[in-house]
Amino acid sequence: MEKKEEVSKEHGNSEAASRTLSDGSICGFESLHRLLESSLSPPVFKEVSRLLIGLNCGKPLEPLTIVETAKGLSSQHDFDIQAFSFQADKELLRESRIVRVGLIQNSISLPTTAPFRDQKQAIFQKLKPIIDAAGSSGVNILCLQEAWTMPFAFCTREKRWCEFAEPADGESTQFLQVFARKYNMVIVSPILERDLKHGETIWNTAVIIGNNGNIIGKHRKNHIPRVGDFNESTYYMEGNTGHPVFETVYGKIGVNICYGRHHPLNWLAFGLNGAEIVFNPSATVGELSEPMWPIEARNAAIANSYFVGSINRVGTEVFPNPFTSGDGKPEHADFGHFYGSSHVSGPDASCTPSLSRNKDGLLISEMDLNLCRQLKDKWGFRMTARYEVYADMLSRYVKPEFEPQVISDPLLHKSGP
Amino acid sequence: MEKKEEVSKEHGNSEAASRTLSDGSICGFESLHRLLESSLSPPVFKEVSRLLIGLNCGKPLEPLTIVETAKGLSSQHDFDIQAFSFQADKELLRESRIVRVGLIQNSISLPTTAPFRDQKQAIFQKLKPIIDAAGSSGVNILCLQEAWTMPFAFCTREKRWCEFAEPADGESTQFLQVFARKYNMVIVSPILERDLKHGETIWNTAVIIGNNGNIIGKHRKNHIPRVGDFNESTYYMEGNTGHPVFETVYGKIGVNICYGRHHPLNWLAFGLNGAEIVFNPSATVGELSEPMWPIEARNAAIANSYFVGSINRVGTEVFPNPFTSGDGKPEHADFGHFYGSSHVSGPDASCTPSLSRNKDGLLISEMDLNLCRQLKDKWGFRMTARYEVYADMLSRYVKPEFEPQVISDPLLHKSGP
Repeated sequence: MEKKEEVSKEHGNSEAASRTLSDGSICGFESLHRLLESSLSPPVFKEVSRLLIGLNCGKPLEPLTIVETAKGLSSQHDFDIQAFSFQADKELLRESRIVRVGLIQNSISLPTTAPFRDQKQAIFQKLKPIIDAAGSSGVNILCLQEAWTMPFAFCTREKRWCEFAEPADGESTQFLQVFARKYNMVIVSPILERDLKHGETIWNTAVIIGNNGNIIGKHRKNHIPRVGDFNESTYYMEGNTGHPVFETVYGKIGVNICYGRHHPLNWLAFGLNGAEIVFNPSATVGELSEPMWPIEARNAAIANSYFVGSINRVGTEVFPNPFTSGDGKPEHADFGHFYGSSHVSGPDASCTPSLSRNKDGLLISEMDLNLCRQLKDKWGFRMTARYEVYADMLSRYVKPEFEPQVISDPLLHKSGP
Repeated sequence: MEKKEEVSKEHGNSEAASRTLSDGSICGFESLHRLLESSLSPPVFKEVSRLLIGLNCGKPLEPLTIVETAKGLSSQHDFDIQAFSFQADKELLRESRIVRVGLIQNSISLPTTAPFRDQKQAIFQKLKPIIDAAGSSGVNILCLQEAWTMPFAFCTREKRWCEFAEPADGESTQFLQVFARKYNMVIVSPILERDLKHGETIWNTAVIIGNNGNIIGKHRKNHIPRVGDFNESTYYMEGNTGHPVFETVYGKIGVNICYGRHHPLNWLAFGLNGAEIVFNPSATVGELSEPMWPIEARNAAIANSYFVGSINRVGTEVFPNPFTSGDGKPEHADFGHFYGSSHVSGPDASCTPSLSRNKDGLLISEMDLNLCRQLKDKWGFRMTARYEVYADMLSRYVKPEFEPQVISDPLLHKSGP
């Protein structure tokens, strides 16, 4: 069903960034940022960037030099690698707190028809060089994508994919603990968790591995989607771990897993608990969510004065048995295109360009965590928030007998349009 | 301090949209949308638009035909006019509920040194043809900008500007009631309110005028900024009207005034009370907020499954007495550039292009309000929100003895980076 690709390239200077299809539409470009950069004159691109991804301390985000080891791994294993630095003002009573954060996005490695053990091991092997690139780049906190050990098979509603679930201290954690120790790196590992102590309950969980390879704790996804082919409520329930913030040697982090990004209260709760960086490991597809993707993450970073690291998997995953989608369309065997586009949003409304829409990638962001408090001091969102008003309102709202505050036009039933 | 403008125009095909300054930067373009439209090839622009302002029912927003009367007024009085239509799916058990919403943005009319009465009357005169253009275009609900009867003088901290405050049934309301009756139009009128029954208390208030010219009610700004030159807390306090939703003959509307847009809970509360359209009449300047402007409104529309109408005033207002800004820079007499850019965001993550960054303007948006419930049914944000968790959390948070949920790495004080 692919549209036929034209031999002729897009006119202007955007050849490198896209291909034109026979219906006149374009495809194949790596990211919005690169498409605009290759299509606009430098002064127009600069102004467009100011509006679209903001400024940090009055300037565009600085690119960071990528070390040769990481560059070599990226070209040898064909993954996108980009690196940026968020600045903060120098303070007089507090040292800068510079950390490097890494986000990894990737496609699965073997077809979903391969033996499960092979599929999982192949993903492990694929991730090794990307994690090494992060480690050799001095990344302090690394986050992988949602359910990274497996295809995102929840669209199928087949229960056999539950076999991929493992305890929080299981195989995938053990695999990552080696890297955590080797690179003195905190690793956030989002997996399908099997809770042995609670009768084999399945959870969507992020395991937090400390920089010494220890397990600091875990967080379970708070909000479970029922939209499109995201049949996750078939597999696991709403998390029971609250909104923990993990105090690591590099800073205070939280994890808002996937669909939780649509819930401003979920973002808020991590903020109220003191998070400085909140990761949003996700799996989401183009037609459903691509225009929403940067908005929700950036809004959360602004509203809560913290950094947000957004990760989405890459590629199209085809499953053995076709399934329908509740949209009246014919059965099909894939979930749609996971569009990657991982990025980091700053509390000052600045944002990195996104990783590729099509390729595996590593995004490295250096940030001075002092920026969070500086933005709180500047904008005062916490102090002007009137939380007592909303504590009261929500307490009333959750009661079945809640009556909304509605003021009706008294003439409403006497006149009409 | 204006940068010198070059005679040579920007290369490419973007001459119409911008001018190049001697330092290579650009200025003078009307909107991001028009700048991109004039700089990109049609297929690239189409894809960029899909990512930046989304699709509505799978297509770009349709422009609406603008009636000749409105076109004439717009060219005679030199204001921007744009019109778009948001579609929704046809339902089988409910008729479409089509309404036309108008947003007006404008600069002040006379210098701030003119007699106050003249300043106010001049704004009234300036607005007449724009309101007539809205009325003759069949606008059902019209919203003006924040404190529309006056310059945004709160930067000065001079109390004499309080003279512009008037009762909710005062001169500006009477002025608008005539248009409400003439055009059978609901009008949202954000003014500086003087509360005579409470000892001349000043509020930042939106008066809701019904389509019969009656006053349905009012809402007072909930969150007051203390940032940059927004010294509004010098003039008025946090509103005491809750989060009312006004049931008008055309639909249920709420008003989130200006700085309240930075507070996701404020947006949420209007949503919980049943709003289908929430207006955000604002006054905000370029360096402080321009990259945040579309993000917060669009996020609110998505998260709460309602339409958001965002309005910002236009131009640079120069005041008689110079003032400092608490930023160590020299005294100056203006607030910076109010960048206009009013727009409407849909619950499906689609968004209209913005009005001009420089000119007065009227944005007309036709919308089928059924889209709100359709998005609630599709995404299920309300049902998956777990409000009881957050009612509990906020109740604990507002207590002075609140302890955040922090899980510390037990090795934290044994090792370091």
